Amino acid sequence: MAETTEPVAFLGLGIMGSRMAANLRRAGFEVVAWNRTRARAEELAAEHGAIVADTPADAAARAAVVISMVVDAPDVEQVLLGPGGAAEGAADGALFVDMSTIAPTAATGIAERLAARRIAFLDAPVTGSKPKAEDGTLTIMCGGDAADFERARPLFEAMGRLVLHVGPQGHGQAIKLLNNTVAAVNTAVLAQAIHAGRAAGVDLDRLVEVMQAGSGGSAVLDLKAAPIIARDYEPPLFKLDHMLKDVRHCLAAARDAGAPLGLAEAAERLYAAASEAGLGDADFAAVAEAASA
Amino acid sequence: MAETTEPVAFLGLGIMGSRMAANLRRAGFEVVAWNRTRARAEELAAEHGAIVADTPADAAARAAVVISMVVDAPDVEQVLLGPGGAAEGAADGALFVDMSTIAPTAATGIAERLAARRIAFLDAPVTGSKPKAEDGTLTIMCGGDAADFERARPLFEAMGRLVLHVGPQGHGQAIKLLNNTVAAVNTAVLAQAIHAGRAAGVDLDRLVEVMQAGSGGSAVLDLKAAPIIARDYEPPLFKLDHMLKDVRHCLAAARDAGAPLGLAEAAERLYAAASEAGLGDADFAAVAEAASA
Repeated sequence: MAETTEPVAFLGLGIMGSRMAANLRRAGFEVVAWNRTRARAEELAAEHGAIVADTPADAAARAAVVISMVVDAPDVEQVLLGPGGAAEGAADGALFVDMSTIAPTAATGIAERLAARRIAFLDAPVTGSKPKAEDGTLTIMCGGDAADFERARPLFEAMGRLVLHVGPQGHGQAIKLLNNTVAAVNTAVLAQAIHAGRAAGVDLDRLVEVMQAGSGGSAVLDLKAAPIIARDYEPPLFKLDHMLKDVRHCLAAARDAGAPLGLAEAAERLYAAASEAGLGDADFAAVAEAASA
Repeated sequence: MAETTEPVAFLGLGIMGSRMAANLRRAGFEVVAWNRTRARAEELAAEHGAIVADTPADAAARAAVVISMVVDAPDVEQVLLGPGGAAEGAADGALFVDMSTIAPTAATGIAERLAARRIAFLDAPVTGSKPKAEDGTLTIMCGGDAADFERARPLFEAMGRLVLHVGPQGHGQAIKLLNNTVAAVNTAVLAQAIHAGRAAGVDLDRLVEVMQAGSGGSAVLDLKAAPIIARDYEPPLFKLDHMLKDVRHCLAAARDAGAPLGLAEAAERLYAAASEAGLGDADFAAVAEAASA
């Protein structure tokens, strides 16, 4: 990581962002941190030696690369392009890297508005949730210009294990949404299979053992079968409402591309029912509570 | 396998059965083989030293345990209970083991009719398809009496790696159908995600790489992403029409149990569309050709 000693602004220190920023510090990068709730930035400063900024603009003024890790496109627009946003503080030639998960069209729209201000942009969402954010073993899928990707690569490598340049701007988001949608459907059918197995009086541990050895195996089987069987969805590794948001963005993007995602539409109804039942802040495995919806 | 030196009748030498019977011979069991197309039984005799029987009844008369490996319940009923069927030749105390995949209610129905003739019955379907049948590394999930399971265990261990007694009669089938239905849905959503990714112009190899590293990973991703991307479904490892049959049995069983499988219903429509388009004998990955149905 010799080439990039540029200070990094990090905007958004939630479950994921706080751990990612800590890993940047561990790798020796200077981090200027901003968070809506300032106490979290102060924690990062106390524990890892980050500098606390008052506003995104203030953070951007003290850094060459700005990373944002917030919930959805309105939040990204706010911290990058709103009043006091990072674009106000950034110098010409700055690079903004959004690692949130948002719609591909939102990413390309933000990229255009930043380009008009001579700010480069990458969309670089991640998969892996909290444990991998903590270990620095996230998967990072980046859309944008290849030279910009190379500029950001040392930062990505401090936070992730598999770091991929996947195509032009927006394609990081497109791939992220497809991955999450496949995971959402795989989880929903797993939940329905467990529900049907329970109703038929089948030994659920045997069912899981057979699926793990066979064609029914999946990453979500390994992660979510136990919480689904135990009906225990706390603490959330990834919130149900965030999964629902991703599935809805993916459905919209697929509709735009003229490729229907019928199975994801069916799954969306289950996640929506679970959210309406008050489970939006639980882990997304709580879709099992709507398995019969 | 010292305890069971009883000769074994093997009925049905298709893609799976021929390889399973060969592994019984390799493990030292005497095998009396019958197949509707006699030439396949003669091949097994020539290559592995099996004895060829003229009818299922003839095979059963020369064996203590009878294994059936055919397509669906009508075939199982025919070879076990039809004219010239195995029950006609079996002695009191014989054990019949059906390793086909059929409806759980069909399995328990056959078990009852055999019990009236003092023949014990196990349902012991398998997962793993052709390569694992060949290697003797199938997963075998067995429903039935524990003592009957122990009697059959040495045979199972010659054909499978993970050999499980999962519950009473019918539960082997119930678990098998749930596994296959989860695999069918996971494959269908994968096909739709690849279709949507292609329509959006994303790099499909990158999409697969991200899913393999992340929450979108699955056994069917590893097995079926390449054929789906290449649109190459020959030779079949598991025929689409057989998958469609399994999904339909599972849907019926889940309805009986009062547990709807909405995602599997959506997938069933895609498999049915692919079958109607003439792809029933192709590998079930050909569901991708109906991804936009």
